[in-house]
Amino acid sequence: MKQIQIPESYSAVVLDSFKGAENLRIELRPVPELNPNEVLVKVAASPINPSDLAFLEGHYDSKKRPPVVPGFEGSGTVLATGKSMMARNLLGKRVACLSQDTGDGVWAEYMVTTAKLALPLHRSVSLEQGAMSVVNPLTAISFLEIARKGGHKTVVQTAAASTLGRMFSRLCQTEGIRVINIVRHKSHVELLNKQGAEIVLNSSESEFQQKLSDVCHQYGSRLAFDAVAGPLSHQLIEAMPPRSKVTVYGALSHELVMANPGQLIFQNKAIDGFWLTESLAKKNLLQFLKIWRRTQKLLLKELKSDIRIKYPLKEVKTAIQDYQKQMTGGKVLLVMQKNQMI
Amino acid sequence: MKQIQIPESYSAVVLDSFKGAENLRIELRPVPELNPNEVLVKVAASPINPSDLAFLEGHYDSKKRPPVVPGFEGSGTVLATGKSMMARNLLGKRVACLSQDTGDGVWAEYMVTTAKLALPLHRSVSLEQGAMSVVNPLTAISFLEIARKGGHKTVVQTAAASTLGRMFSRLCQTEGIRVINIVRHKSHVELLNKQGAEIVLNSSESEFQQKLSDVCHQYGSRLAFDAVAGPLSHQLIEAMPPRSKVTVYGALSHELVMANPGQLIFQNKAIDGFWLTESLAKKNLLQFLKIWRRTQKLLLKELKSDIRIKYPLKEVKTAIQDYQKQMTGGKVLLVMQKNQMI
Repeated sequence: MKQIQIPESYSAVVLDSFKGAENLRIELRPVPELNPNEVLVKVAASPINPSDLAFLEGHYDSKKRPPVVPGFEGSGTVLATGKSMMARNLLGKRVACLSQDTGDGVWAEYMVTTAKLALPLHRSVSLEQGAMSVVNPLTAISFLEIARKGGHKTVVQTAAASTLGRMFSRLCQTEGIRVINIVRHKSHVELLNKQGAEIVLNSSESEFQQKLSDVCHQYGSRLAFDAVAGPLSHQLIEAMPPRSKVTVYGALSHELVMANPGQLIFQNKAIDGFWLTESLAKKNLLQFLKIWRRTQKLLLKELKSDIRIKYPLKEVKTAIQDYQKQMTGGKVLLVMQKNQMI
Repeated sequence: MKQIQIPESYSAVVLDSFKGAENLRIELRPVPELNPNEVLVKVAASPINPSDLAFLEGHYDSKKRPPVVPGFEGSGTVLATGKSMMARNLLGKRVACLSQDTGDGVWAEYMVTTAKLALPLHRSVSLEQGAMSVVNPLTAISFLEIARKGGHKTVVQTAAASTLGRMFSRLCQTEGIRVINIVRHKSHVELLNKQGAEIVLNSSESEFQQKLSDVCHQYGSRLAFDAVAGPLSHQLIEAMPPRSKVTVYGALSHELVMANPGQLIFQNKAIDGFWLTESLAKKNLLQFLKIWRRTQKLLLKELKSDIRIKYPLKEVKTAIQDYQKQMTGGKVLLVMQKNQMI
């Protein structure tokens, strides 16, 4: 049996206060003792997601308090475990790893998490895709579930050129649900068209509102997933037919959600929110495992994330700046180990 | 049998375009032929409600198009009917009368409506109270139903010093539901305290947000009825505990509904709307008659409207100006007949 080397310390990105990426630094941390249910993951990679940016700026609802290692999801190999059966079963396995409610996250060479947040990866899934297999893919699957449950044959989504947006659009194509994709640049329209999206509207065009209203009424679209908030939520509410709902799951505009009260009152429209953490917490283990199996199959095509660029861990600040400049066209991935081939 | 005199024409208030009260004029109209299901009501009185103001300015969702007689509710006596059984049964009866979806409303000496929108008044109910027995009282009863159905023991309401607000507050006192009343003037606080309201917050005070949050968390208040919209909806959403809902039923601020997206996403909060017309349309006749009987009993106390001042029909513009200046402290009532004693 091969002897696995566990180092005494490792490099980690640390956030000192909720003031954005400028407050990040690299720190050498000791490898801690593991509790019975914990595992030590040698991290391979971790993406920068919009939720990470929100966390760095203190806009994400979290129990974590600085100084803390950011990063909600990643992938790696379990190098050591606590004494519980569930933890020991994971030894040596390739996993998607999620950060716990409190404590340090994934942006480090090593991370400790509980066994149930280390999800074994099928051999068909690379560590690269595994690093991005939870936040976006499970959100896309959850949106599909919500649409199905409400009997929606057409749904609207904003930020459709984001990794999640393109993923959800592809998933719905396969599943036979029509998507009205909203983007804000001409180049994004092309991006969506290339992957076969049928309906793509550019919110920067002058006739956007009328076009959106026409297409929503034509197809009876009564459900929208909105990652932008601000005036765009208002436009969605205006455009959709009576008894529609806008589900907000992001606030890329950094503005308040807005809506015409008359639309809520007379047209029976509503607004609510979606949070993956809350949504998954409602599922029992069996339901979760079913979704996880399905997600992994779809990671090869519908739920695959494009990678635009990779950065080593120590260049985390540059990586974030790059991502903030261009949030579409593929993910920015942090690669944790030196000379890493994943 | 007394011969009832039906005139050939009558005075009516007419709105020429959706540009507010300035566009109103008095016109002499011929009494039309009645369809089988219609009744002719000699109108006694009609209040000016916030929904009337919204209608005059084109903010109310209505199929009515100018030139048209405004006025959604009133009271009077049925002087003539069409040939249907339902209509003939109403002959000579004192009724609360509502305007139809299309066509002329109540602000006139006479009005024509369908039999099912002429609701016979119990002898305990005066024509004055009968004139204000539908819009506000049925809304208050509907709010109570919504609160009960959702298992809410405490609810929040804005515009609590309005006639409806005070009504709802009294009704909840009787029914054992706690109300967190929000008003915007010190004098309104006194108004509510006088009628025994336990919790009254003044949104103009500097510590309002903190106080609201404290009291909402103390009592686990997860339902708010909001007639104001704008920044106040945002404050409600912020103040209430997770899994709360704001139901918007008016827009006295003339602003968009606003909400922090983080509250919707991470705290599972939601916003929807309430419209009495839609809410009543969902009820069958039996359910409606049950509510109508209950409402009339409560009109003597909980659902009674105070009257601040009465104006003759021809002074409708002055009446509206007066109401716009002071929308609390009792209703402004239009009295339709000359030398009328009601």
